[in-house]
Amino acid sequence: MKKASIKDVARTADVSIATVSQILNNKGERFSQATRDRVFEARDAVGYVPNANARSLKKRDYTLIGVIVPTLKLPYFGAFVQSLRDDLPENVSLSIMSGEREAADEAVDRLVEAGASGIIIVSQLAEPETVAQTLKQRHIAMVVTENHANLKDADAVFSKDRMGGRLAAEHLIAQGHERVVLLGNQVFTDNLTYRAESFKETMLEAGVKVSEITTHNLSKQSGQAAAMAVSISKATAAFALNDDLAIGLISGLAKLNWRVPDDVSVVGFDDTEYAAFYQPGLTTVHQNVSLLAQTSLNFLMQRIENFQMARQDIAIDVDLIERASTRSLK
Amino acid sequence: MKKASIKDVARTADVSIATVSQILNNKGERFSQATRDRVFEARDAVGYVPNANARSLKKRDYTLIGVIVPTLKLPYFGAFVQSLRDDLPENVSLSIMSGEREAADEAVDRLVEAGASGIIIVSQLAEPETVAQTLKQRHIAMVVTENHANLKDADAVFSKDRMGGRLAAEHLIAQGHERVVLLGNQVFTDNLTYRAESFKETMLEAGVKVSEITTHNLSKQSGQAAAMAVSISKATAAFALNDDLAIGLISGLAKLNWRVPDDVSVVGFDDTEYAAFYQPGLTTVHQNVSLLAQTSLNFLMQRIENFQMARQDIAIDVDLIERASTRSLK
Repeated sequence: MKKASIKDVARTADVSIATVSQILNNKGERFSQATRDRVFEARDAVGYVPNANARSLKKRDYTLIGVIVPTLKLPYFGAFVQSLRDDLPENVSLSIMSGEREAADEAVDRLVEAGASGIIIVSQLAEPETVAQTLKQRHIAMVVTENHANLKDADAVFSKDRMGGRLAAEHLIAQGHERVVLLGNQVFTDNLTYRAESFKETMLEAGVKVSEITTHNLSKQSGQAAAMAVSISKATAAFALNDDLAIGLISGLAKLNWRVPDDVSVVGFDDTEYAAFYQPGLTTVHQNVSLLAQTSLNFLMQRIENFQMARQDIAIDVDLIERASTRSLK
Repeated sequence: MKKASIKDVARTADVSIATVSQILNNKGERFSQATRDRVFEARDAVGYVPNANARSLKKRDYTLIGVIVPTLKLPYFGAFVQSLRDDLPENVSLSIMSGEREAADEAVDRLVEAGASGIIIVSQLAEPETVAQTLKQRHIAMVVTENHANLKDADAVFSKDRMGGRLAAEHLIAQGHERVVLLGNQVFTDNLTYRAESFKETMLEAGVKVSEITTHNLSKQSGQAAAMAVSISKATAAFALNDDLAIGLISGLAKLNWRVPDDVSVVGFDDTEYAAFYQPGLTTVHQNVSLLAQTSLNFLMQRIENFQMARQDIAIDVDLIERASTRSLK
């Protein structure tokens, strides 16, 4: 069926197209209430909806920004996006996209097409430099929480991942663990690389042996699948690069009748809500996700306001939260 | 700084505005490669970005649809949205919004303004009939997964919530529980009401006493806060209206040194991924979230294709998944 046009409204209300246009655009003060009512009734009767694009050309009264996360299935990213939403200024609209690498680069294109004034990129990009340059040329603000190392054309907000890896290592060293497993993603993103590297460096300095078990991705399923490998590794502790891996590992160990922390200690990363509510409570590196989201949003809005300002970046502290999933061997 | 215009590109490339327009719109075959290169270079040099709205008026080559969920913090909704994304046809773009009741109604307005052709509404609306009528008049497709009882102007896809409540009750009855607690949200949505009502009805028929504990919302925090009330209720089992409440309850009971299922059995609802990975594994009512998402998307795309087709609704079966959080008293 053909969509109703403004002509249909005018014919039904028995007024001119100009009258319809003015009344529907809230500029119909000079018309009688009866005429205005007739136009609104006619609009509803014929099912007319103004062409949103045509209308927004004239009065787009909000700023569109976008956020790109790897997936909404992992609660860390859900919490990040929800935190952005909760802090959104009234005249700003947020479009949420998901995707990793090539798919993340494509999501950027889609947001540019949609007219976004700025984009917060939580995902790893396939070609970060190219994306950053393109957005800069087009005066579209960009904040990254990954890829921050060499990206001079984007503002950056990130957790101190190296500090996190080191805190996890120091915790296990202090508890007397001398043989540990590092459980991580096979394809490392920058942030995961920092966590893993500083964990291994700290352990090496302390003379602790680290064996590595690669996993398919960062999911609970991948953690569970790694349980057998952990159980035969002779390690007394495992560091998983995120909480979901850690939770999966603990549940996989339980199926093998291994208990945490009695048989093996487990440390996670993120401190998603599930870490605190898990049984046993998960010892993990806390990322301040709401501060990360708020700061990303602030940087983005500042850049939209003043595109020429100097680049901003900030590294946010992490903490080790000690719960029941690790125990001292001393 | 003033945004670069097409004039700036034309001046920099030393060609006419018409030439720039044709080349940037991929209609510049008749121009030399040198001219085309010069125009693209000029565009990048001046940082010109075509007005997305102006452009999409002429050639909007994708369909925009929207989804509105209560929050992205709860993994059930994250899984629903991610499942929609995974199934999205190539020429369809998805805008994700979050909000409940009045905020959900406003999210509908925002999606209409953005030119959405259809909206999947997972949240409870404040005025479902009004929203459905308005969208119908404007020929915008609408699928609801809540509010389905009396909403004749929207297609509906929903889990058999009454069946779920009954299955939970029958499981506890079969295990010999004679005093149970129902743990639920203070402000009921339709779906939660169905779960709770059929649970209570089934229990009543079996002569089992049900006491109710209201919670602030459906979060893990609310479940944890209810642990004391459950522990003094003398009930041998608790039915929580979603998994997050159940997980929160189990962790709250652990802090009181109550063990699940030894001291009290716990049943959840949803079967989010955390139910299987929790310790103990959570007995829960499984909702087929990916089938719910796929079917919602199919209904929406069919309605967009043919707005006049008859209303569709479908109720999707649920199952009870028995894990380690419940035990037989017999």
